[in-house]
Amino acid sequence: MRALVLDGSPHLVHDRPTPARRPGEALVRLRVAGVCDTDLQLARGYLGFRGVPGHEFVGEVIEADDPRWRGRRVVADINAGCGECEECRARGGHHCPNRTVLGIVGRDGAFAEVLAVPERCLVAVPDALDDDRAVFAEPLAAALHVLDEVDPRAPGRALVLGDGKLGQLIARALASGGVDTTLVGHHRHKLALAEAAGLGACLADALPSALRGAPLVVDATGSEAGLAAAIALTAPRGTVVVKTTVAGAISVDLAPLVIHELRLVGSRCGDLERAIEVLAAGAIDPRPLIEARYPLARADEAFAHAGRRGALKVLVDA
Amino acid sequence: MRALVLDGSPHLVHDRPTPARRPGEALVRLRVAGVCDTDLQLARGYLGFRGVPGHEFVGEVIEADDPRWRGRRVVADINAGCGECEECRARGGHHCPNRTVLGIVGRDGAFAEVLAVPERCLVAVPDALDDDRAVFAEPLAAALHVLDEVDPRAPGRALVLGDGKLGQLIARALASGGVDTTLVGHHRHKLALAEAAGLGACLADALPSALRGAPLVVDATGSEAGLAAAIALTAPRGTVVVKTTVAGAISVDLAPLVIHELRLVGSRCGDLERAIEVLAAGAIDPRPLIEARYPLARADEAFAHAGRRGALKVLVDA
Repeated sequence: MRALVLDGSPHLVHDRPTPARRPGEALVRLRVAGVCDTDLQLARGYLGFRGVPGHEFVGEVIEADDPRWRGRRVVADINAGCGECEECRARGGHHCPNRTVLGIVGRDGAFAEVLAVPERCLVAVPDALDDDRAVFAEPLAAALHVLDEVDPRAPGRALVLGDGKLGQLIARALASGGVDTTLVGHHRHKLALAEAAGLGACLADALPSALRGAPLVVDATGSEAGLAAAIALTAPRGTVVVKTTVAGAISVDLAPLVIHELRLVGSRCGDLERAIEVLAAGAIDPRPLIEARYPLARADEAFAHAGRRGALKVLVDA
Repeated sequence: MRALVLDGSPHLVHDRPTPARRPGEALVRLRVAGVCDTDLQLARGYLGFRGVPGHEFVGEVIEADDPRWRGRRVVADINAGCGECEECRARGGHHCPNRTVLGIVGRDGAFAEVLAVPERCLVAVPDALDDDRAVFAEPLAAALHVLDEVDPRAPGRALVLGDGKLGQLIARALASGGVDTTLVGHHRHKLALAEAAGLGACLADALPSALRGAPLVVDATGSEAGLAAAIALTAPRGTVVVKTTVAGAISVDLAPLVIHELRLVGSRCGDLERAIEVLAAGAIDPRPLIEARYPLARADEAFAHAGRRGALKVLVDA
């Protein structure tokens, strides 16, 4: 089958064997996949991944143990725990030390005609929810996970630093939870997208003092400078959510963390069912974030496009 | 009066004017003070402090607006907020942007015959509690503040990294709250102190795998390597409490923070009344941590002693 393979630089192959279906797994035919910054980092060697990347997708089940899955449109939780360790039994598989992560750790992902996914990870897509919204389920789940840092009885206000794909989704997720949210970035046209969605938006170098000192600040910049800015913009006893994985050590002054008694909270994946519900309810429409789309036969070009500075979401159609 | 002054290197003076008492303040005659690592950092230029350091003390009130304070033995909350800003009104003065901090920011401290302290910061010492225990009230308050990260219904277990003064107090504070606590350090004689107090203790290079992956890890090492170790020893979704202020930027790999969804929590000062209660109840006896004592006339020697690698608590008697 056709697939994008990471093995050195990303390249297309046409003769990748279709994955074998093991017990408990479903085979899923790709409909559409999204390129994530993590994919671009994997292509640069992050985590040493070799194989087919891709963890944001919508597909159609073609084979499964449970015949009710066949023909269903699905998305999937990308973390597949072993199901047997203490972590899996107590809290699900998101932090299982032996887990596979679709297209990231130990399991081929979605930039291929067919992918194998543990059946227990599948989440059905309602008929009324189109592919172009459902393909955002995985990153939106991660974005909605930030809401878990918010007291729903007193949602307060938040700053989201970084007007890229992830920052845009997080800002929408927080606003959907009643948080008075301002997206802070460097790109007028991206800030305009946030404003069109009813959010506050502000150029980073023009942030008024009234917006500084927020109880919740999310760093979605993926940069060392962004984290320092997030720490500086957080009110005493406030929370800094660190959302993007910066590979390797970074230099950061943690004295303000102690002096102002901040919490620095790492946040990774979220609940796919919750994301599908929010999308199906129409509370968030991520489609304005789609910048370009390519057929799978040109997935390498999709990667190159997604790697352009400032690119928004790039999709790959089956 | 006699005082230790920071103005360049720490030096004794004999002609420091006795502080004037402003409205709302009490004058307190020193009985005993403790040297903290923060004092040593101030002596190296941290925060640009010039004046009399010292924020761990027991004294006797000699003048106050409220005559009931006169003659009382006291300790004090070192943070004196303006009392008028939103922060002071909502949450007390610990994070007031205009606060003074005794012997640290904008206010002379305790290494002097007499100090001036806002009356509202005073906490009375019960007669049954001797000076040598009460002088630990301030650092113990900070240590007990770490307990606020623990669910009292499920105290669980914790690792405290660093067998110095602060780590010793934090380990005792956690154990007093029902947390199964292990102190981890590099000094057999200090670990023995922890064991004598009924705590678990373990050499850092011999930590068994069963103790790794703790839900709560406290970094009281004050070192870059200590923070990295704390992050590495914390279970997924666990909490790393950063207790010591490392001046300046440090290099840290925050990827595990995101991947394992850890919380990095800065923790500074605590509640003096709570510390006095714990000490008065006999739940914690900090006196085995006293390594040496000097008269105020030799406070410069006390500083030099406290600055020796691995020194425990050094006291200064009036």
